[in-house]
Amino acid sequence: MQSFNVAILGVTGAVGTRMLQQLEKSDIVVDRLVLLASARSAGQTRIFRGQSYTIEEATTDLFKGIDIVLSSAGGSVSKALLPAAVKAGAVCVDNTSAFRMEPDVPLVVPEVNPGMLSQHHGIVANPNCSTIQMVVALAPIDRQYKLHQVLVSTYQAASGAGQRAMNELFDEAQQRHEGEEETAAILPVKGAEHHYPLAFNLLPQIDVFEDDGFTHEEWKMIHETKKILRGDMNDTELKVSATCVRVPVPIGHGESVYFETNQTPAVPDMQALLAHSKGVVLQDDPAHQVYPQPINAAGHGETFVGRMRADRENPGAYHMWVVADNLLKGAALNAVQIAQELIKRDLVRVPEVTK
Amino acid sequence: MQSFNVAILGVTGAVGTRMLQQLEKSDIVVDRLVLLASARSAGQTRIFRGQSYTIEEATTDLFKGIDIVLSSAGGSVSKALLPAAVKAGAVCVDNTSAFRMEPDVPLVVPEVNPGMLSQHHGIVANPNCSTIQMVVALAPIDRQYKLHQVLVSTYQAASGAGQRAMNELFDEAQQRHEGEEETAAILPVKGAEHHYPLAFNLLPQIDVFEDDGFTHEEWKMIHETKKILRGDMNDTELKVSATCVRVPVPIGHGESVYFETNQTPAVPDMQALLAHSKGVVLQDDPAHQVYPQPINAAGHGETFVGRMRADRENPGAYHMWVVADNLLKGAALNAVQIAQELIKRDLVRVPEVTK
Repeated sequence: MQSFNVAILGVTGAVGTRMLQQLEKSDIVVDRLVLLASARSAGQTRIFRGQSYTIEEATTDLFKGIDIVLSSAGGSVSKALLPAAVKAGAVCVDNTSAFRMEPDVPLVVPEVNPGMLSQHHGIVANPNCSTIQMVVALAPIDRQYKLHQVLVSTYQAASGAGQRAMNELFDEAQQRHEGEEETAAILPVKGAEHHYPLAFNLLPQIDVFEDDGFTHEEWKMIHETKKILRGDMNDTELKVSATCVRVPVPIGHGESVYFETNQTPAVPDMQALLAHSKGVVLQDDPAHQVYPQPINAAGHGETFVGRMRADRENPGAYHMWVVADNLLKGAALNAVQIAQELIKRDLVRVPEVTK
Repeated sequence: MQSFNVAILGVTGAVGTRMLQQLEKSDIVVDRLVLLASARSAGQTRIFRGQSYTIEEATTDLFKGIDIVLSSAGGSVSKALLPAAVKAGAVCVDNTSAFRMEPDVPLVVPEVNPGMLSQHHGIVANPNCSTIQMVVALAPIDRQYKLHQVLVSTYQAASGAGQRAMNELFDEAQQRHEGEEETAAILPVKGAEHHYPLAFNLLPQIDVFEDDGFTHEEWKMIHETKKILRGDMNDTELKVSATCVRVPVPIGHGESVYFETNQTPAVPDMQALLAHSKGVVLQDDPAHQVYPQPINAAGHGETFVGRMRADRENPGAYHMWVVADNLLKGAALNAVQIAQELIKRDLVRVPEVTK
């Protein structure tokens, strides 16, 4: 069996930690493993398949001989380091938004559009967490019945903003319990002018605002969904809109999704379709109060779908409720699945580079 | 100035407590005050405008001489007691869903449809909390630009299910902190077969499920909105759909509202319209991270609106984010405002009853 030299960039973060775990659980045979993070974390160790590895400070000269880079250290780090990794011959699966909208960078969810992988030039982008779980649920319906409109309102977990944001949520909850004032320092956006508590609150801002009043997170959901389902971030035949809200949940994004198709399938047919779709678990039994919940989805790799019902007044329109672990399927697991798919398709090579 | 004999039914609950407070703050001159609750609470006292009142067990014979009943003791209590109150000559403002869909019972939000009050036969229904804040925000736009479609996803606070549900949320958060298992006993629905923790979780079920897969809460939002804005719970020209989700927030419902109009007004025109609408506070300045949040809305009587923006692809379609204190504008305050409006319009009398 083929073996690979793998580097994980940003291995100490909420997603990086899980990339290491998901790689360990995967069938990827790892020859050499390089763990990279910021200078602050250099020298720490991590166990992988029974062996101890020391974390090194990420620099451009550490990618020599690496076949696969799994990257989740922030957009600016990806921009600074990944071109050098590609030049050294490594294929990079990047979890940041740095390259997602580049026309020659495939944006891939393995259950949805694995065929795009053949077009990579060294970088494959992992979509935004909120986009991944939505397209996993929508793609089977789109393939069968063709979507023309999607409207989503998200209920996004704190960990989407990283481990420290998740810690902040728990700290604030405890501060509230002890009658102290909450001390928000990270959310809604790291480095923003104002910070607001998330515990026992709702923050209708994720990422910065664009000029048209949408946040960048909403912009991502719109354009990434079009790129993944239609191959074009500016596709006009599939209309997509999003409202993204941060909620006081540590792990597990919820999404209230409204969609319109060109046909009028019966709800049980769509439920059956989803029940047999890869990566989807149908949890849709209202009579027994079965529906997706973040506390049940956390720690699992599937996308959970429920509350599917036909709109009462618009023929061909439906509603559903989608939940997934934003750190696993929304990030680390999807990245490892992309690496597996690259291996399966013999695409772990940079076309322009001869090693 | 005219004075009134007022009874508050269910005065010990989350809403009833606030009905007493809002009545105290109001300009209503109260002659005699009768506080009613279940047998369990009888004998307790409450202070109102400096005077102590003893709570009595609610029975049908206590409404004699009462002019106004403010009721929030649950649908079955309203059904059992309010007909007797009306017979005794009292006008009842009922916060439960018991009578909302009766054709001869006005369903009123004073800023929106106060004219309906003249049609009462002794009972005026206070709409559901999630409906009230949405129609306060939508009505000015509807009047000016005529709506034909509304899609809402709600983010509803625990207190919508009562004081005990709110306590349960805080208890669960503390149990989680102490590493204990959460002991849910109330949510999602009191008396349901299964109970799930709300702390750090999302529950896509509010009230029981209808046969079509919608919950009764969603059903209420759909039909109440039509009745309030179009005078007919089954109106077909204004399409309404809702997905209702309980979130781990104690007080303050959030709503992601998508609406379509027959015109294409500019967003600043709609913002100006809302800024000058009664009961609305516009909090819409993304550049300075100003938008409605439950922690800021709690304890206030207004409906807060922000994040207004035009849909990027559907002309005449818009998105906004609406937050209000579900116990005040969503319940106790709206009920007291109805009483004030009844007084102003000289409608504190039951047409069929001569005292």
